[in-house]
Amino acid sequence: MSGRVSDDARAARATLLRVSEAATPLVRHVRAHGVEATLADIRAGAAIPGVDVGALQQRLSEADGWRDLDAAAAAGARLVCPGDDEWPRLLDDLERIDADCFGLWVRGPLRLDEACGRAVAIVGTRTATAYGEHVAGDIAAGLADRLWTVVSGLAYGIDAAAHRGALAASGVTVGVLACGVDVVYPKGHRSLVERLASEGLVVSEHPPGAAPQRHRFLVRNRVIAALSLGTVMVEAAGRSGARSTLNHARELLRHVMVVPGPVTSAMSVGCHAALRDVPESVVVTRAAEVVEQCGSLGELADPLTPPPRPRDSLGPLVRRVFDAVPVNRAAPADRIALTAGMRLEVVEPALAALHALGLAERSGDGWRMSRTGRAERHGSRPPDTALPLAWL
Amino acid sequence: MSGRVSDDARAARATLLRVSEAATPLVRHVRAHGVEATLADIRAGAAIPGVDVGALQQRLSEADGWRDLDAAAAAGARLVCPGDDEWPRLLDDLERIDADCFGLWVRGPLRLDEACGRAVAIVGTRTATAYGEHVAGDIAAGLADRLWTVVSGLAYGIDAAAHRGALAASGVTVGVLACGVDVVYPKGHRSLVERLASEGLVVSEHPPGAAPQRHRFLVRNRVIAALSLGTVMVEAAGRSGARSTLNHARELLRHVMVVPGPVTSAMSVGCHAALRDVPESVVVTRAAEVVEQCGSLGELADPLTPPPRPRDSLGPLVRRVFDAVPVNRAAPADRIALTAGMRLEVVEPALAALHALGLAERSGDGWRMSRTGRAERHGSRPPDTALPLAWL
Repeated sequence: MSGRVSDDARAARATLLRVSEAATPLVRHVRAHGVEATLADIRAGAAIPGVDVGALQQRLSEADGWRDLDAAAAAGARLVCPGDDEWPRLLDDLERIDADCFGLWVRGPLRLDEACGRAVAIVGTRTATAYGEHVAGDIAAGLADRLWTVVSGLAYGIDAAAHRGALAASGVTVGVLACGVDVVYPKGHRSLVERLASEGLVVSEHPPGAAPQRHRFLVRNRVIAALSLGTVMVEAAGRSGARSTLNHARELLRHVMVVPGPVTSAMSVGCHAALRDVPESVVVTRAAEVVEQCGSLGELADPLTPPPRPRDSLGPLVRRVFDAVPVNRAAPADRIALTAGMRLEVVEPALAALHALGLAERSGDGWRMSRTGRAERHGSRPPDTALPLAWL
Repeated sequence: MSGRVSDDARAARATLLRVSEAATPLVRHVRAHGVEATLADIRAGAAIPGVDVGALQQRLSEADGWRDLDAAAAAGARLVCPGDDEWPRLLDDLERIDADCFGLWVRGPLRLDEACGRAVAIVGTRTATAYGEHVAGDIAAGLADRLWTVVSGLAYGIDAAAHRGALAASGVTVGVLACGVDVVYPKGHRSLVERLASEGLVVSEHPPGAAPQRHRFLVRNRVIAALSLGTVMVEAAGRSGARSTLNHARELLRHVMVVPGPVTSAMSVGCHAALRDVPESVVVTRAAEVVEQCGSLGELADPLTPPPRPRDSLGPLVRRVFDAVPVNRAAPADRIALTAGMRLEVVEPALAALHALGLAERSGDGWRMSRTGRAERHGSRPPDTALPLAWL
């Protein structure tokens, strides 16, 4: 596991991880001033906007990054930091939602960046049904067969079924904990945690020995979302922590996927609610559909680049107008309205919007497809199309 | 059942319904020249674009609208035509997809226009599972409780469960047949057909005595879609006639709703495929959600007006930019890009699009919400907002 970060810097990160709870307002200060200066400011009791510096001062007086690094090493774990070769750049996206990850404690034989190069998160309720566990395991195994990594939270229910499905297919799986990587929680998962630590990876932001406190589960969920190119929700009750993972995935512009279930099952209520509430959510029923959804994104360098189906992202009526715009010979707006079977007063602003989005162009008194619009309509795209046109 | 159409005109329509199969290219000729002139043209063997006039000539020589009206009356049925008080104006929307309905044979004690004033179609496979029949019946009963009419096709499986659910809740239900209204098909549904004919309505485009030929089922499906403000698909195999109803609903700008099921069930494959393929499709799990979806549309005069949630209809990234636009004090595009956590080169065309759609406006060097944009963001809408802004 090659590192690029100096020992001192790593120890400072370890100290910071013990002092701060992740995703506090401290992240902006760290981003602006760096880790060492932030620790010095806390030590000096300097004011940091939105942060209870007094509380952090107290914790800092008891913290020792070197000691944590030693404790981790004794448990077979290491601290991976931004700047390390092993640091997954996907985690840097957390800056965008002001929930930076300062570093991850990692146990296991794989490189974290490589393990998460093509990863999908599978999340859901702890009180899963046989149906949910079956589907989660099945999708996880299918992903492993296709050489995708399965990320989850090592909880009972859907999480465990997902990890086990990946392991059963000899795949890579990463467990993100809400406690220290040397702590087994839940206790019943001792052998599963050990198996991940020996064949896959177990990771956590929380320092060695940290207990699984309630708020840490929600904080942990954003790392699950960030490490993956998309999150699949398999079963979730009306209120479920899995929903927070899905929301983070959405905020991070990752793919949001949901497995439906019987509408008569309380454990699918959260899934169907997500499909109704989250506009970006997509129904998936098997591994191939998950890969179809995430695949293109996985092959692109920039996780900001969204799925390449611009036309489908238009609102339904704007798309209807788009479909009525002539490819070559321009037609006036009223003719397009006739073709679309819509009123002129709704067609005109839609044409203006298509123009602004680069899909339609004026020609004489009329409108026709732009070059990009033609490519979109035919499902291909000219090679020189710039990013802005790829996500309409 | 008051009519406004003359006896001669009604008999001509009856003749036309026997001669033409619905949804042929004949509709444009009828629209341009009227029923009587079309019949005269067929009789004279005049050329009609796209129509095999010779075949129609042959059928016309054997057709007699008066005789069909008599046969219908003997079976307790009447012919409802465009221009009649009882004609549901929703059916005129079929013109928009060149699939005009020339008239409907109707059996039953209710006025067709009133029965279909607030109607939802429930469709699905003939080989339904217990799950599908349970959910279809449950949603139908819930719709009936809320005084909505349930439209379906009187087939085995989901259709029958939907009709029965509505009847069990003492609701109104309309069966659209692919045969004559005096023909019982399938034979096992004799008592169900009779119950609809005595408490609800049984309707068909096909003349008295017409057999349920294969192509008539698909043609019939467009009437099911047109008579309703939305269509709910409950269970459907990979290939299912229900999909055609859903497609017609989409073309007619009706609500497209799908009930999910276990991904392990072959009878839910078509439902999940529709949720993946049809961008307008919405997950529904119970009657209240169906009404929530269709309700606002039901209260508006013009079925073209789509659901009133413009912001949700924006593509995901344009919406993200929209959410980053300041409400009052304008901000430059690069500041908005920072807020949105997106690149300037993707934010700029999105702002132009929001401007074209009337949601954002320029102010000095920057951008801010327009009045409509502010209303949209807060979920209300100024009373003077015109239609074009209601469907972005």
